[in-house]
Amino acid sequence: MKRPTIADIAQRAGVTKAAVSFALNNQPGVSPSTRQRILEIAREIGWQPNSAARALSDGRAGAFGLVIDRPAGTLGAEPFFMQLIAGIQGELAAGHTALLFTVAEDRKAEIELYRTWWGQRRVDGVFMVDLRIDDPRIGVLRDLALPTVVVGAPEGSGGLSAVWTDDETAARLAVQHLVGLGHRRIARVTGMTDLWHTRIRTGAFMQAVTQVGVEARCVTADYTAQGGADATTALLAEPAPPTAIVYDNDLMAVSGLGAAQRAGVDVPGQLSVVSWDDSVLCQLVHPAITALRRDVVAYGAHAAQRLLELAAGGAPGSRGEPPAVLEPRASTAAPPRS
Amino acid sequence: MKRPTIADIAQRAGVTKAAVSFALNNQPGVSPSTRQRILEIAREIGWQPNSAARALSDGRAGAFGLVIDRPAGTLGAEPFFMQLIAGIQGELAAGHTALLFTVAEDRKAEIELYRTWWGQRRVDGVFMVDLRIDDPRIGVLRDLALPTVVVGAPEGSGGLSAVWTDDETAARLAVQHLVGLGHRRIARVTGMTDLWHTRIRTGAFMQAVTQVGVEARCVTADYTAQGGADATTALLAEPAPPTAIVYDNDLMAVSGLGAAQRAGVDVPGQLSVVSWDDSVLCQLVHPAITALRRDVVAYGAHAAQRLLELAAGGAPGSRGEPPAVLEPRASTAAPPRS
Repeated sequence: MKRPTIADIAQRAGVTKAAVSFALNNQPGVSPSTRQRILEIAREIGWQPNSAARALSDGRAGAFGLVIDRPAGTLGAEPFFMQLIAGIQGELAAGHTALLFTVAEDRKAEIELYRTWWGQRRVDGVFMVDLRIDDPRIGVLRDLALPTVVVGAPEGSGGLSAVWTDDETAARLAVQHLVGLGHRRIARVTGMTDLWHTRIRTGAFMQAVTQVGVEARCVTADYTAQGGADATTALLAEPAPPTAIVYDNDLMAVSGLGAAQRAGVDVPGQLSVVSWDDSVLCQLVHPAITALRRDVVAYGAHAAQRLLELAAGGAPGSRGEPPAVLEPRASTAAPPRS
Repeated sequence: MKRPTIADIAQRAGVTKAAVSFALNNQPGVSPSTRQRILEIAREIGWQPNSAARALSDGRAGAFGLVIDRPAGTLGAEPFFMQLIAGIQGELAAGHTALLFTVAEDRKAEIELYRTWWGQRRVDGVFMVDLRIDDPRIGVLRDLALPTVVVGAPEGSGGLSAVWTDDETAARLAVQHLVGLGHRRIARVTGMTDLWHTRIRTGAFMQAVTQVGVEARCVTADYTAQGGADATTALLAEPAPPTAIVYDNDLMAVSGLGAAQRAGVDVPGQLSVVSWDDSVLCQLVHPAITALRRDVVAYGAHAAQRLLELAAGGAPGSRGEPPAVLEPRASTAAPPRS
């Protein structure tokens, strides 16, 4: 069984290919009854318009692009991207728009992909993730006039439309939870400092701790399991180690918990652990990890809605998501009496 | 800055659009020096051939498809698919083939997507995952003559090309490791029984335990964290509980470990835990989990190589991957003396 063609329909209907083309393109030149018969046969044999021909005639590619430039090894362990993609897909599938997804070597390769995809009309728009300080992608995407939705902070998106979450509320919830339990020495293990995301979270976190007047500091890591474990080991070796640590993702929180346990530090008896972003990882380790939870699937869906609007000629503009909620679990408790 | 067109090149070069078209398509009709100048201007202003026009002329879509029909929530937690995709991408990027990736509602929606993608010439081939017993996708893909590579067992692929791993060696390695430590009552928590993958692993596991003459059984779960925890709780509540459990994925192994710890069962003192498939999850929990490790990124790359060959008209045929190796970690030890 080969792909059905207009010639196949013409043969079955006993008409010319031109007549079939008139009928399928809703043009005059065939009688209503013949048009009806041709459309029925087309449906019956599963004929589909050629996407390339359609793209040439209406100028649409029927696809959005998403490029991630993290190493393949770390990507697999972070639930965030798969959930984001699932949310995007759910929204796009209904409108028959496909998602072109690629892992790029580096930022340069990513930019090259945008040029190629847009130049070749492979995409009608792109999602941009991992927004950085002075991000070179922004100027390129603006120059290309390629419809773009940034999944991240509008502060750094250079006027591109963004879908973002309110990190100030999240920071306050985590700090209030820990201070309410009695903690006075709190540390935070961050993601890469060249990410806007990290800068905004650091600002929000330091503001939240300043408001309640407790001692706090941020140490830099990189979202990886190894980075989370190393930062934890270093913090616990200090003369006055923190009694609570907030981690910027689930992977570092889980590996930080493992590192503390390996060092003989009881969680939550001697150390409380909070994950900034929840996932099944946080729920299934022992003790289960207290986490700031947001709906990443909905986040992806909203990003897709914005890009559909933009690609259809809608006005640029950003959209805020509801703030995270704190999910208290077994990894947080009162600090040890000193 | 809009997408550069042939008209833009013609204007800059001071020639007709026809001359530009001759030069770009390597046809006679322009002098060598004019051709040279036109090509330089095209490069300079970033002109790209329109993918839709090219697809119409050479009949290629320049993309492969991958559909996964698991719920969005569970997908994010399993490193396997992201690593597989990373491996596929690495191979495709070099040849400028894109990956069209989608999460489908169910098997029916997945089949519908294959028909649409192929009918509309959106893809030149597809990767098929999660092969089931009596899988309805096989007949459809064969009828469509859509180039397909099954990521899974050739036994169930109905003649479609497959890329697969040797589970017999893996099963033997896990059983020998546990029996060598002194275990005589071993259980295995499986994935869904309608998957070929599960059937083959069960056969290999039961053969391995029979060969060494120890007591063993398989209980059915579903690859989810909840399923792994429930199966573990049930097994530990039995009158003669197993002293070692092998889990069919990393997610169930990690949640099984958590469930045992919550029940006050010491790992590895009272229970040994093995994960059939390794990931950073297994390494970062405490105790780190002994696992059967295979190179999933390479697995994806080989699947992509096979599909590139098939789509280029190569002969069908399956390819075996190297067997997994056992990575002993802290979660396995001698059983308690009874």
